[in-house]
Amino acid sequence: MNTGPARGMRDFLPEEVRRRQYVIGVIADVYQRYGFEPLETPAVENIETLQGKYGEEGDRLIFKILKRGEGAGTGQADLALRYDLTVPLARVIAEYRAKLPKFFKRYQVQPVWRADRPQKGRFREFYQCDVDAIGSKSAVVEAELCAAVSDVLLELGFKDFEIVINHRQILSALLTGAGVTPDRHGDALIALDKADKVGVAGVDMDLEARGFDLATRSNLIAAFGSPYPPDWSGWNVKIDESGRAGFENLREILRLAAKTSAAPHMRVEPTLARGLSYYTGAIFEIKVPDLAGSLGGGGRYDNLVGMFSGEEVPASGFSLGLERILVVMSERNMFPPTLATTPADVMVVQWFANRTDLYLDFASSLRAAGLRVELYPEAPDQDGKKVGDRQFKYAGARGVPFVAVIGADEDAKGTVTVKNMKTGEQTSLPRANVAAHLKASI
Amino acid sequence: MNTGPARGMRDFLPEEVRRRQYVIGVIADVYQRYGFEPLETPAVENIETLQGKYGEEGDRLIFKILKRGEGAGTGQADLALRYDLTVPLARVIAEYRAKLPKFFKRYQVQPVWRADRPQKGRFREFYQCDVDAIGSKSAVVEAELCAAVSDVLLELGFKDFEIVINHRQILSALLTGAGVTPDRHGDALIALDKADKVGVAGVDMDLEARGFDLATRSNLIAAFGSPYPPDWSGWNVKIDESGRAGFENLREILRLAAKTSAAPHMRVEPTLARGLSYYTGAIFEIKVPDLAGSLGGGGRYDNLVGMFSGEEVPASGFSLGLERILVVMSERNMFPPTLATTPADVMVVQWFANRTDLYLDFASSLRAAGLRVELYPEAPDQDGKKVGDRQFKYAGARGVPFVAVIGADEDAKGTVTVKNMKTGEQTSLPRANVAAHLKASI
Repeated sequence: MNTGPARGMRDFLPEEVRRRQYVIGVIADVYQRYGFEPLETPAVENIETLQGKYGEEGDRLIFKILKRGEGAGTGQADLALRYDLTVPLARVIAEYRAKLPKFFKRYQVQPVWRADRPQKGRFREFYQCDVDAIGSKSAVVEAELCAAVSDVLLELGFKDFEIVINHRQILSALLTGAGVTPDRHGDALIALDKADKVGVAGVDMDLEARGFDLATRSNLIAAFGSPYPPDWSGWNVKIDESGRAGFENLREILRLAAKTSAAPHMRVEPTLARGLSYYTGAIFEIKVPDLAGSLGGGGRYDNLVGMFSGEEVPASGFSLGLERILVVMSERNMFPPTLATTPADVMVVQWFANRTDLYLDFASSLRAAGLRVELYPEAPDQDGKKVGDRQFKYAGARGVPFVAVIGADEDAKGTVTVKNMKTGEQTSLPRANVAAHLKASI
Repeated sequence: MNTGPARGMRDFLPEEVRRRQYVIGVIADVYQRYGFEPLETPAVENIETLQGKYGEEGDRLIFKILKRGEGAGTGQADLALRYDLTVPLARVIAEYRAKLPKFFKRYQVQPVWRADRPQKGRFREFYQCDVDAIGSKSAVVEAELCAAVSDVLLELGFKDFEIVINHRQILSALLTGAGVTPDRHGDALIALDKADKVGVAGVDMDLEARGFDLATRSNLIAAFGSPYPPDWSGWNVKIDESGRAGFENLREILRLAAKTSAAPHMRVEPTLARGLSYYTGAIFEIKVPDLAGSLGGGGRYDNLVGMFSGEEVPASGFSLGLERILVVMSERNMFPPTLATTPADVMVVQWFANRTDLYLDFASSLRAAGLRVELYPEAPDQDGKKVGDRQFKYAGARGVPFVAVIGADEDAKGTVTVKNMKTGEQTSLPRANVAAHLKASI
């Protein structure tokens, strides 16, 4: 009998859950400080809601749920598992329009499911942490998104991250200016997006392979090969109206972000393109050294959220990759030492067979003080072994830092012996002082 | 286009998410104080893991996932959605035996899915909050479970709950003693379980309808109609060895629970039976006045968790019904006033069109102090309306309690005007004092 989780899925044992909850907690706290509100949608959506939204490849990767009741046995599906958090957001905005504020700022941290081929670091159930501001085209939105993401990463202990930024309107103008027709923009962008990995020569080869002629390739490499100038009016590059507006918008975002914690982390990268086709304005990616991919990314997508309502709804957002953040934090040992990694702060020993009520009473008093307390469940007569052997070993093996003993002496004097399992040090304390002593020690 | 959630599923808008997270937070905190550790398992399980575990009715209610790749188009299912948290727990215990401690105490708060007919208060996606102690038969386990559940409910503000307790070994002995053959125990228990709703006469009628003869019925009503005596040895009722052991165990649980916060809430109920067949020892149900069903329940089930490993693994646990707890708390208005129900503590107004950097800078300083700050995203020139009109109205409509304004006067003097949106009171403060003022006011 196979007792493992399903292929590409994971069980999270306690230590891993604590780490995940810690990171999710930081993300939620920071986003709330920026006025983003939590949203949750069901894991299961009507299949029509999802199908046709993620391209052909995406459609194939959707987990579909068999009809039940009258439809049982037909082999047809009427429901499907959430594939991302953006389509459900669009659905929610169409459904609750009247209830939601004009500027709806939401974050959502929930699992999504994709029937991808599992491989190292790629799972079929994984969490997305999305933060999106709906309803405004102001550059304040992007500046605050960068600041919020920056605060998340700083609070998690990242110092060396970059928020790489670019702008779809500039990209589009540069491509048009270089002679690429709109239907070939996507193709050219895929090649240019790899510049940070393959260099100029690599991009040129890729463009050639994709059928771009020498003149266009030279134009492209000239346009994208140098940093953007501080002011487009002095730019020696053809750029249309929309491109100029994009350039102004990018400058405004950077000017505002300079007033936030994101300031030292912003970097403009003319070849950053992002894969998804739906972006319409600023685009972002978060990079850290020694990680091939990114920790997250996002951008403005003014034509997507209105898909269900038929109206144009401006929107801009970031998605953080929880699984990647966890991998990097584990590799770099970034979890705070104060993060509880033990099942309890203290274990209360059952020294005598017939004093369980005393030990439970004592454990209750420590719990009332807010401590995490394990009471060894079995009294020594049930164990049939010497107390010291078994119970102390158990606490040690579980990594519980302190053990509290009330034996004959302690009982007579109203004291407790507290043993520090790391140092072996034993302290005798009046019973009423144990909670304060432990709280000061952990 | 249908933009609602799928049938029987729910979207949770921000206010509802905050309430759910608050309750889940209290549950997790309390369980941790008792040394229970968090576990998470995937939403999706191999179909073999679930099928055949929940009876015929349960099997029909499992959401099944269509095969993909080579199996696509066959209409067959290879995966299914989690139906409860107990079978995944049993799987985890078999899979990670060597990694898990001898006494594994876990809590798990995750959604489950059942293709039940949706009705008022019954959903197809709902959360279960399970807490289970694996590996010990000690009565300490049940006493601590009752104490932990009691602490959860007290911390949520419930005062009038009862933890109704009974014991399967006593029930079984009483049934046998009354002349009911083991194969009819389940039938008799279903009838007896309704005693609190239909009374003795109702139970008698039900037993008659189920084909129990007059003698057996009289025996049953005599056995179950009166409270248990304080000591079985003085009991004027036939009871076998296992029943006596059950009785001793029940008394020990009550004696220990008396040392905990559960003490005033425990009540023995001889007709409490619980529906599920797998219980083997103590059984519990949590009742509050004016709620027909229960807020949760549980019991000891020593033969279930070993289903995948083939060993007997003692286990006892509680399951709290998050959805019901939320319903009662809403009806009774039990959410603490300190629970954030607003999107932000303060909204920063954009008074001038060209000072967005100042407002963002100021918002950042409030956020750094831990406040939840909404910066109105659009500068007045984007709005095209007078500031006072639109931005104050927006803050008011969203229920943000304070609004901070830096106009010409304030800018010149380095101050901020803070308006209390409830009282209308306006306070002028040096910029550096605003965070402290707001923190003291909210």
